[in-house]
Amino acid sequence: MSNEKTIPYKIYLEESEMPKQWYNVRADMKNKPAPLLNPDTLKPITHEELGNVFCDELVKQELDDTTAYFDIPQEIQDFYKMYRPSPLVRAYCLEKALGTPAKIYYKFEGNNTSGSHKLNSAIAQAYYAKKQGLKGVTTETGAGQWGTALSMACAYLGLDCEVYMVKCSYEQKPFRREVMRTYGANVTPSPSDKTAVGRKILAEHPGTSGSLGCAISEAVEAATSKEGYRYVLGSVLSQVLLHQTIIGLETKAALDKYDIKPDIIIGCAGGGSNLGGLISPFVGEMLRGEANYRIIAVEPASCPSLTRGKYAYDFCDTGMICPLSKMYTLGSGFIPSASHAGGLRYHGMSSIVSQIYEDKLMEAVSVEQTSVFEAAQQFAKVEGILPAPESSHAIRVAIDEALKCKETGEEKTIVFGLTGTGYFDMFAYGKFNDGEMNDYIPTDEELAVGFAGLPNVE
Amino acid sequence: MSNEKTIPYKIYLEESEMPKQWYNVRADMKNKPAPLLNPDTLKPITHEELGNVFCDELVKQELDDTTAYFDIPQEIQDFYKMYRPSPLVRAYCLEKALGTPAKIYYKFEGNNTSGSHKLNSAIAQAYYAKKQGLKGVTTETGAGQWGTALSMACAYLGLDCEVYMVKCSYEQKPFRREVMRTYGANVTPSPSDKTAVGRKILAEHPGTSGSLGCAISEAVEAATSKEGYRYVLGSVLSQVLLHQTIIGLETKAALDKYDIKPDIIIGCAGGGSNLGGLISPFVGEMLRGEANYRIIAVEPASCPSLTRGKYAYDFCDTGMICPLSKMYTLGSGFIPSASHAGGLRYHGMSSIVSQIYEDKLMEAVSVEQTSVFEAAQQFAKVEGILPAPESSHAIRVAIDEALKCKETGEEKTIVFGLTGTGYFDMFAYGKFNDGEMNDYIPTDEELAVGFAGLPNVE
Repeated sequence: MSNEKTIPYKIYLEESEMPKQWYNVRADMKNKPAPLLNPDTLKPITHEELGNVFCDELVKQELDDTTAYFDIPQEIQDFYKMYRPSPLVRAYCLEKALGTPAKIYYKFEGNNTSGSHKLNSAIAQAYYAKKQGLKGVTTETGAGQWGTALSMACAYLGLDCEVYMVKCSYEQKPFRREVMRTYGANVTPSPSDKTAVGRKILAEHPGTSGSLGCAISEAVEAATSKEGYRYVLGSVLSQVLLHQTIIGLETKAALDKYDIKPDIIIGCAGGGSNLGGLISPFVGEMLRGEANYRIIAVEPASCPSLTRGKYAYDFCDTGMICPLSKMYTLGSGFIPSASHAGGLRYHGMSSIVSQIYEDKLMEAVSVEQTSVFEAAQQFAKVEGILPAPESSHAIRVAIDEALKCKETGEEKTIVFGLTGTGYFDMFAYGKFNDGEMNDYIPTDEELAVGFAGLPNVE
Repeated sequence: MSNEKTIPYKIYLEESEMPKQWYNVRADMKNKPAPLLNPDTLKPITHEELGNVFCDELVKQELDDTTAYFDIPQEIQDFYKMYRPSPLVRAYCLEKALGTPAKIYYKFEGNNTSGSHKLNSAIAQAYYAKKQGLKGVTTETGAGQWGTALSMACAYLGLDCEVYMVKCSYEQKPFRREVMRTYGANVTPSPSDKTAVGRKILAEHPGTSGSLGCAISEAVEAATSKEGYRYVLGSVLSQVLLHQTIIGLETKAALDKYDIKPDIIIGCAGGGSNLGGLISPFVGEMLRGEANYRIIAVEPASCPSLTRGKYAYDFCDTGMICPLSKMYTLGSGFIPSASHAGGLRYHGMSSIVSQIYEDKLMEAVSVEQTSVFEAAQQFAKVEGILPAPESSHAIRVAIDEALKCKETGEEKTIVFGLTGTGYFDMFAYGKFNDGEMNDYIPTDEELAVGFAGLPNVE
């Protein structure tokens, strides 16, 4: 047991204690995630085929499910040192406000200008693109954190950066756009008329406010239709989850430093990369029979891929040009209600996280957004950090679990991922402050429409 | 000399190494700052008179120019632990990008939701108000950092918080306002019709976009006209500078930890509290004959109180209801051009900083805003932090000094204060990105108007 008095408010690792390798949890999984399939042949996609879309080194990482550790190149380690290690914070003030005997910790990834954990993978993907001698990269962004992170990484390395930003975010978040422009990125609202798939979607849905799946399609087309460009993605893919294990590895190192053993680990789930990155080292211990944890994924009730989705092969993008991935999904045609604020709006889920869930190594719950913003505000007032709406899903459940401990008197140790800050989400906070936020939950009939679009692949 | 290889990207103090006292540089000054005067009697203001406006404990701190150290109450130390110590960052990437032999460090105060150093004094002032049993506090805010900081501190302590926000900021920064609302503050655009002084200013200048001096007048009136409220101020006052010495004390402790001796220390200057807080421990060494440093204050060319102002008694506010302070000032009627972006728009300067400047312990330079935003963008691209426009004044001069070292080959050690982030300043960044930012410098004739309003006090 840890000596309570010695635990500081913030646990920082020394530079020398920072992880030098990413951890690939697939290496320890008995049931490997199903392979990506070529959408035309329905056969497992090859290195060569993926290499048209992604950088070579990233393709290797994507397809490798046996190597447990990948060295983090020195240049990426140096970049990490600018904003990492991120603090593991003991939420003393929140514990006190809740009057709970639980011990609450959060790993805070918001102390960088992208405002989130996204930078961990952005620098890695941009680095490999640069190393391959490419001119630039294209991507999509929803809430804007990923686009900001990628534009930062590209500015640092001198790479061209083209961002397709989901139209409703582009309009609601002009300042996000401006940050990306300040970092030299070219930002286009999606769907746009710059790509064939964008023009097709615009013709079919003239008034659409866009979706992540649709922006992905545009970015992939933009990358593959010109010389010297590749596509990069901020979540969902196994390579992204690999880079994000820096979160979990640092968390585990910080906990180990003070002999703290968590009982519950909580993360918010959109595409699954932050969640997967946080939980990977802990799931690895469970897979190797070394420890046991209760792991909880939290998703929005308005986009419930784990709790109400199907575990099936599906397209990663609306345009159906990306490989098929076996995952918990609502169907690539699913678009969350316009009333849904913030990110976590992707129709599917990382294939690794999906398999972990399928194997019952993890629970999943969905929460409604006004209760999420209530938790966000409560947290902000006592812990001094205004959280991103996405991160606040994890806060909601951490508070709920801490309140259960208050009832039972259990001194559980709760760790959650605080993925980012909400400074660019004040439009949504304003709606909440004005009492104009509503909780939309899709009906079974509405979900059936998305499921009907699933491809017939076993 | 320090061993270069052992210096990490970020120097963090341990919790146990954090300062437990604030340092009052006035105790070591031979030429004390001139006393505040009662605007009616023109005599040094008394504890009793100031006690109508400020909390009792803060009045003591304001008027005490002999006690060198004030204990930081445990509750404030605990709050500091939530977001402090702030990192002292070695700007390895900026050095490399500039190709300079200079060693550049910056003390980064932006890793908290207020986005700046302002929280250091906000929590102190709110704490003393709470301890005195008050219901709430009133204040003004310009760029919005101070108002955000105070609303955070008040939310934490359960105090009511009324913020008068300079109208042009209120309109340009709706999201700043929303952060304050999320923390439960009541935000009013100034000038307003809620106060007599606001109504008077509106009648005289119907189209005015407001000023800091005017918002101060409204906040003071609001505090003094109802039971259980006091006024708090985010800069200028000696008490604020005292609290902000946490910046300089941590900086010095971090430098000492690695045996680093700075040659040049640079800070941006608005009301002078962040600058004064950063430099106090170093000026103290100079005053005691223990060391010598080159200290540079950087101010905007559009609001040049140190470089073009007069050293004279002046009103702290436009409404002329606050005590008179002897300081470098442009006159309380001076309002910076509407083209001026961000903060640093106060007409005067901390009396302590003014005396330090008058005694030639510090230099001052003014810089134009497009060159400031150029430095900001350059810094953001290599150091990964999008700086506040205010902070970027210091970046500008740090880069200029580092480039001089490149010419001369000198390996000088430069330390500057990076007071905050620019996440809520994207309107101004957008103007810069669009090439629509201009550099306004007031003419001598324009400054003469402000000087004409100076009171006749020797």
